Amino acid sequence: MQAKKRVIVVGGGFGGINAAKTLQNCKDLDITILDQRNHHLFQPLLYQVAMAGLSPAEIACPIRSLFRTKKNVSVFLAKVTEVDLKNKKVKTAAGEFAFDYCVLACGANSSYFGNTDWEQFAPGLKTIEQATEMRRRVLMAFERAESTRDREAQRYYLTFVVVGGGPTGVELAGAIGEISKFTLDKDFRNIDPGRTRIILIEAGERILQSFDPQLSRKACRALEKLGVQVWTSSKVSKISKDGVVVGDEFLRAKTVLWAAGVGPAELSSGIDCPKDRQGRIKVEPDLSLPGHSDVFCIGDQAHTLDRDQKPLPGLAPVAIQQGRHVGKLIIDDLKGKDRQPFQYWDKGALATIGRKSAVMQVGKLKSFGFFAWLVWLFVHIFYLIGFRNRMAVFWQWAWHYVSYARGARLIIHKSWRMFDKKD
Amino acid sequence: MQAKKRVIVVGGGFGGINAAKTLQNCKDLDITILDQRNHHLFQPLLYQVAMAGLSPAEIACPIRSLFRTKKNVSVFLAKVTEVDLKNKKVKTAAGEFAFDYCVLACGANSSYFGNTDWEQFAPGLKTIEQATEMRRRVLMAFERAESTRDREAQRYYLTFVVVGGGPTGVELAGAIGEISKFTLDKDFRNIDPGRTRIILIEAGERILQSFDPQLSRKACRALEKLGVQVWTSSKVSKISKDGVVVGDEFLRAKTVLWAAGVGPAELSSGIDCPKDRQGRIKVEPDLSLPGHSDVFCIGDQAHTLDRDQKPLPGLAPVAIQQGRHVGKLIIDDLKGKDRQPFQYWDKGALATIGRKSAVMQVGKLKSFGFFAWLVWLFVHIFYLIGFRNRMAVFWQWAWHYVSYARGARLIIHKSWRMFDKKD
Repeated sequence: MQAKKRVIVVGGGFGGINAAKTLQNCKDLDITILDQRNHHLFQPLLYQVAMAGLSPAEIACPIRSLFRTKKNVSVFLAKVTEVDLKNKKVKTAAGEFAFDYCVLACGANSSYFGNTDWEQFAPGLKTIEQATEMRRRVLMAFERAESTRDREAQRYYLTFVVVGGGPTGVELAGAIGEISKFTLDKDFRNIDPGRTRIILIEAGERILQSFDPQLSRKACRALEKLGVQVWTSSKVSKISKDGVVVGDEFLRAKTVLWAAGVGPAELSSGIDCPKDRQGRIKVEPDLSLPGHSDVFCIGDQAHTLDRDQKPLPGLAPVAIQQGRHVGKLIIDDLKGKDRQPFQYWDKGALATIGRKSAVMQVGKLKSFGFFAWLVWLFVHIFYLIGFRNRMAVFWQWAWHYVSYARGARLIIHKSWRMFDKKD
Repeated sequence: MQAKKRVIVVGGGFGGINAAKTLQNCKDLDITILDQRNHHLFQPLLYQVAMAGLSPAEIACPIRSLFRTKKNVSVFLAKVTEVDLKNKKVKTAAGEFAFDYCVLACGANSSYFGNTDWEQFAPGLKTIEQATEMRRRVLMAFERAESTRDREAQRYYLTFVVVGGGPTGVELAGAIGEISKFTLDKDFRNIDPGRTRIILIEAGERILQSFDPQLSRKACRALEKLGVQVWTSSKVSKISKDGVVVGDEFLRAKTVLWAAGVGPAELSSGIDCPKDRQGRIKVEPDLSLPGHSDVFCIGDQAHTLDRDQKPLPGLAPVAIQQGRHVGKLIIDDLKGKDRQPFQYWDKGALATIGRKSAVMQVGKLKSFGFFAWLVWLFVHIFYLIGFRNRMAVFWQWAWHYVSYARGARLIIHKSWRMFDKKD
């Protein structure tokens, strides 16, 4: 009997999970998923956690529970420190894992364009920890404004800056607009949350650049209705605890959220392969690393091209399709079949602005408004992994929609200790 | 026109919220609630958050949203540093608040009997931050055990010690038993979670001492069925990162949870009044402070007696009834009526062991088993403040009951920062 081939999947995001799901029923394989977190995260809804609409557990589920009945799939909570391409080994703090095939699906990191000290003043949105930190900052700003009578201080606390006009930035800014206009409107006595100042800053000429210019314009109008000022062609040159410098202007703001740059996954730096400007690994048409046909790189960690030789965007559907493709390739390899190049099937793109409008672009079809929002809602709930989460999110949303309530308005402190106050 | 009387309520727990709710429709009063957290917490279910059964937001809601339509009620997120009884002022970092009436409802703290350094090794369970820390530790222990092949290390990771055999300790130990036996049983490959060792340590002669001895015995048997070893008459003399010293025995354990001592609220130390051994303020029969008829102290912060001159337990129903009583007294004062002494109406006590059994004692009626568990379930869901939470918890529970799943199995790291690793 031939020994089982060992597949290591690094990363339990959309790419990694879908690769493992495609392989899980193949009896000739031993599959190991390594991730430094215990949960798979439905990242497209992470902004809802940051904006107190959903609880973390509603968009996350333990990776191991996704594979509990599949005895040939193991999951380890371990941070991968190195991929040794030559000796075909993955190194972690918990030991080494030898592989026959390796799938790298580590995603991407936020990038502050070299200014990593900005992070403390402007958290990014990639993890649950960051989302609850954003939530804490946004809710605390309203609380602080309420407890002072100083008008200038109130203005400082009630100014929110979102840097980056892509889908995440638009979703964050729109959600802050909604919270202040509808959710919190009756909750405060000294301040009028409706007067909150929200500024969305985009370095390019328009927001939502991956969409049609007409949709960008409509999204811009929708944001303005929610009280968001959209500043395009504006570049942030400094972020400090007092606010943001944009061109020659200083914006005094307590809360700054970062939705701008995407940088390389930490692990990528140790892998000796050609990369693009964002640090993504340039892979072969079959998604393998150049010169290493048994190591694949997918999702946000990889630089891949569509039919017109344009780079594919960092979206969940790309990672999902690539994960499945790699899974099929490995099975094909075992059967001795030829490898097929990866082709992305573009199902379109969606971004939501508040709770009843969205932009949608599917091929030539463009849509804006309530219909696009319904499509957005349906797609997101449908794709949420796990039945329970799907139902919970649906109920949460239905309730949220009817009542304007936000159920997860918790300010959670950083320290849990009572007798060691560093909070 | 007479000026409005100012009522300050310190603390948004069961006592404070119920006092404010009783007063909220009284037009002659200006009510201010001060709390260092933005949420009211349904503490009886906090152990469910610690044990990954519920999300924090499902048992907490913002205090201000409870009073959003009541314009004469203000809420400030502020830590009270001092109560100046003489000048009738409450001092906070956000300024001073003068009062005509003050209701102190700060609850209690965990107590380590002078060994505050034990806290880092054995978190208590009073706040959401502590509950998520417990959850992190329990889930991490299983992950660590899975990623080692060293039998001794596995044993260390898979030993859980719960200190304190009151309702909280029993509920925690029972829940760990259930998680390991049912929820995680198929999730791991290297370890058998069913072999987890759980030890419940109680200094007294029996667990659940507030219940009938017969019920204690039955609870003990039910815990043993879930794999919990119950050690009574056992006193912890040391806790370190390696484990617990009990008598002359050293118990090697990675995870220790503290459900033993209750100590005074921080604020109590600055108040010059007679206190009991646990640091609770001894109040007059009408719940006012001796010599200060316009300052009340209720709930876990107060020492009060029942008809037989026995101290009342630190339970939610006591705090709720006391909050309402104080509210009525203040309204009676305004009307010039005489004050009535507080009388506790004992509705009985409940504690649950796992997901289908509980102990119940209502006057002479004692019950153990599934019926008691149903009563427990009904009572807890019924009393959860806020419709949405009630429904969410009900769904969560129904699903949890049918599937043995635990929806909130998230390990959340302490630091949110990516470029400053101190995690």
